[in-house]
Amino acid sequence: MSSPNALPPIITFLSDYGSADEFAGVCRAVIARVCPRARVIDITHGIPPHDVRAGALVLAGAIPYLPAGVHLAVVDPGVGAREGAAARRAVALRTGREGHLLVGPDNGLLMPAAARLEGVAEAVDISDSPRRLQPTSRTFHGRDLFAPVAAALAAGEPLAGLGRPLASGQLRELELPHARLSGDRLLAHVLHCDHFGNVILDATSAQLAALGAGLGERVSVSHRGRTVSALHAGTFAEAPVGELLIYEDAQRMIALAVNQGSAAKALGASRDDALQISAA
Amino acid sequence: MSSPNALPPIITFLSDYGSADEFAGVCRAVIARVCPRARVIDITHGIPPHDVRAGALVLAGAIPYLPAGVHLAVVDPGVGAREGAAARRAVALRTGREGHLLVGPDNGLLMPAAARLEGVAEAVDISDSPRRLQPTSRTFHGRDLFAPVAAALAAGEPLAGLGRPLASGQLRELELPHARLSGDRLLAHVLHCDHFGNVILDATSAQLAALGAGLGERVSVSHRGRTVSALHAGTFAEAPVGELLIYEDAQRMIALAVNQGSAAKALGASRDDALQISAA
Amino acid sequence: MSSPNALPPIITFLSDYGSADEFAGVCRAVIARVCPRARVIDITHGIPPHDVRAGALVLAGAIPYLPAGVHLAVVDPGVGAREGAAARRAVALRTGREGHLLVGPDNGLLMPAAARLEGVAEAVDISDSPRRLQPTSRTFHGRDLFAPVAAALAAGEPLAGLGRPLASGQLRELELPHARLSGDRLLAHVLHCDHFGNVILDATSAQLAALGAGLGERVSVSHRGRTVSALHAGTFAEAPVGELLIYEDAQRMIALAVNQGSAAKALGASRDDALQISAA
Repeated sequence: MSSPNALPPIITFLSDYGSADEFAGVCRAVIARVCPRARVIDITHGIPPHDVRAGALVLAGAIPYLPAGVHLAVVDPGVGAREGAAARRAVALRTGREGHLLVGPDNGLLMPAAARLEGVAEAVDISDSPRRLQPTSRTFHGRDLFAPVAAALAAGEPLAGLGRPLASGQLRELELPHARLSGDRLLAHVLHCDHFGNVILDATSAQLAALGAGLGERVSVSHRGRTVSALHAGTFAEAPVGELLIYEDAQRMIALAVNQGSAAKALGASRDDALQISAA
Repeated sequence: MSSPNALPPIITFLSDYGSADEFAGVCRAVIARVCPRARVIDITHGIPPHDVRAGALVLAGAIPYLPAGVHLAVVDPGVGAREGAAARRAVALRTGREGHLLVGPDNGLLMPAAARLEGVAEAVDISDSPRRLQPTSRTFHGRDLFAPVAAALAAGEPLAGLGRPLASGQLRELELPHARLSGDRLLAHVLHCDHFGNVILDATSAQLAALGAGLGERVSVSHRGRTVSALHAGTFAEAPVGELLIYEDAQRMIALAVNQGSAAKALGASRDDALQISAA
Repeated sequence: MSSPNALPPIITFLSDYGSADEFAGVCRAVIARVCPRARVIDITHGIPPHDVRAGALVLAGAIPYLPAGVHLAVVDPGVGAREGAAARRAVALRTGREGHLLVGPDNGLLMPAAARLEGVAEAVDISDSPRRLQPTSRTFHGRDLFAPVAAALAAGEPLAGLGRPLASGQLRELELPHARLSGDRLLAHVLHCDHFGNVILDATSAQLAALGAGLGERVSVSHRGRTVSALHAGTFAEAPVGELLIYEDAQRMIALAVNQGSAAKALGASRDDALQISAA
């Protein structure tokens, strides 16, 4: 079908499978069996276990940098549930951007990425896909369902043949907190803390600018009853070593960091914590 | 020798090298030098350090999903020892399943995988393989011995040329605990705790069924003098969030989990712990 | 330009990005966009955050085993700083060994590796490389600068076109501690503790030999006011399980280990700790 000299199809892969276990590796092996030509690019498998929101935000932040291909994402606390509050479909989505497809659970994980790829152009419910492995386990759909469907798409199979058509309006959206301005204060929340201890907030650059503290000026950050000062900086090294700064990160999110240290540790900050920020 | 359009040969790779250090990466680099066409699929490098049994069980559980190729596995507390109780050979094995070979230390690590690949058809002792790197370190045989031998096999070199013939009866078997029924109780052991905190037991489905607690019914689990209740479920989401369940996992092992939590933490369970399970 | 059957160009990749986040994965994705034929070999992303010295030592230790290609390394606490003490250039280096290039921050990280590759033959300052992504973030130069430049080199672009020429004498060297003999004692320092808890020192084999304790004999190790005994051994299993040993490791560094245990934990040792070693 394709020329032997053609470049291999790409599958990018993000999950909460961690690196301690074989889960991601076994999915890579299944992909190699279904589509031996595919090349897998691991984005990360270090999403905090079951944290659909963190997975969705990391995937959406990475999307502008990913090559065309199938983007496989698995953060799936509802795996195997067909009924009840936790029940979820498994889906494959063709997006508005040429050559970009998404595969994963229908729990909101894929939706911010889809929005950055010009929306969902075609959706199928792959819960009973003819491409799933048989027998299909109830607890490891990465291996038995998502990986083989992603590999079939990478091999060039049409989306429509891999499941049942689904209206895009039926897809589950992701719920996110939203920072807001209240008088001269910005009320924000911790979306995620990364490996360096950087604390990513739900605030925008425009909201931070509205406080009136420009680059090189300071803000006050109140968190759990404690107020600390942070330098509004362009990069880490503009603050003295060990000092807190607030900055726009490489995904254009507002974040807190400590130069050569961990803001998460310094603040004792965790996911979903509320903060108040104002000009100092 | 092979057509330029042929698919690359596959080496799967499992170890306890972790992701903090360069050990696995340097092995991948050595493979690329010896057999540039080979593609490495990392299964995991997160086996607990020196835990041969965990490595053997993870590899055997993954085997049914791996493509044909050379399966390189290194969990090797006896590395470099040629004498004494810890001495071990290094081996390469051709299995009964077409195209599947195993390379690693002869400490039991490879044997459950070999059993799932229709047994050992041909074995060689590669301790002094002509393909080992010179000088050969005494502490990093992954780099100096196992990776180059695996790459030579991937490049198509015959097994017999890579070491000295060995009778398969000389290979060291793995010792495993075995769950057993005693009256109306099942006496089981913790084989392994995974990244999600799922606690994998040595019990079989048949043993669990013998207790008489069907799906949706409850069992009592006694561990370290404490007795807790667990729901016999098909998947995580069938139990309320935070509640303990017992289930058959995706490798067909009996395991304990907490829906969206960690059973290992909830129970305080570690490798080799004994548990008693009975109908509630 | 190249034959379609040619082997893919190689990029090796080392960083302190960890496995919890998407940083390394996004760099891999950027490489795939700029040079789809390139193959990335991850050496490790587990360098302790901001530890330029650990990254430099790990890269230099790996170099003799790496295939020809572009060696991309990112440990970059000064990212984005253009002025002040932390300011650093970004550089790409052609080394004296045919086909080996280095890309990363000019903070000493690349220099021990360059020394093992017969020195720097040509250097360019890539801080404003025409190949950098636009807009260029100030905090993620791995994605926006180093990965696209490494990929352009892998695609065959000439070094000179990727930045401004730089005299190799302008490159920043790495500062390292140096063990020394004082009477019958060896004064050494902890360079790094690895995933197994092995403690790597700055001492040489010749310095250890000068103490007069041959293989199978014992040395005394004084650290933080405590003196313990260690067996001078060739490999871990020569010491009883749980016992401390001193040995030449696979990178020819002198190190302390505990057979099937962690010397770092047993000693309570950390980076830069001073130790005194003498014949027992």
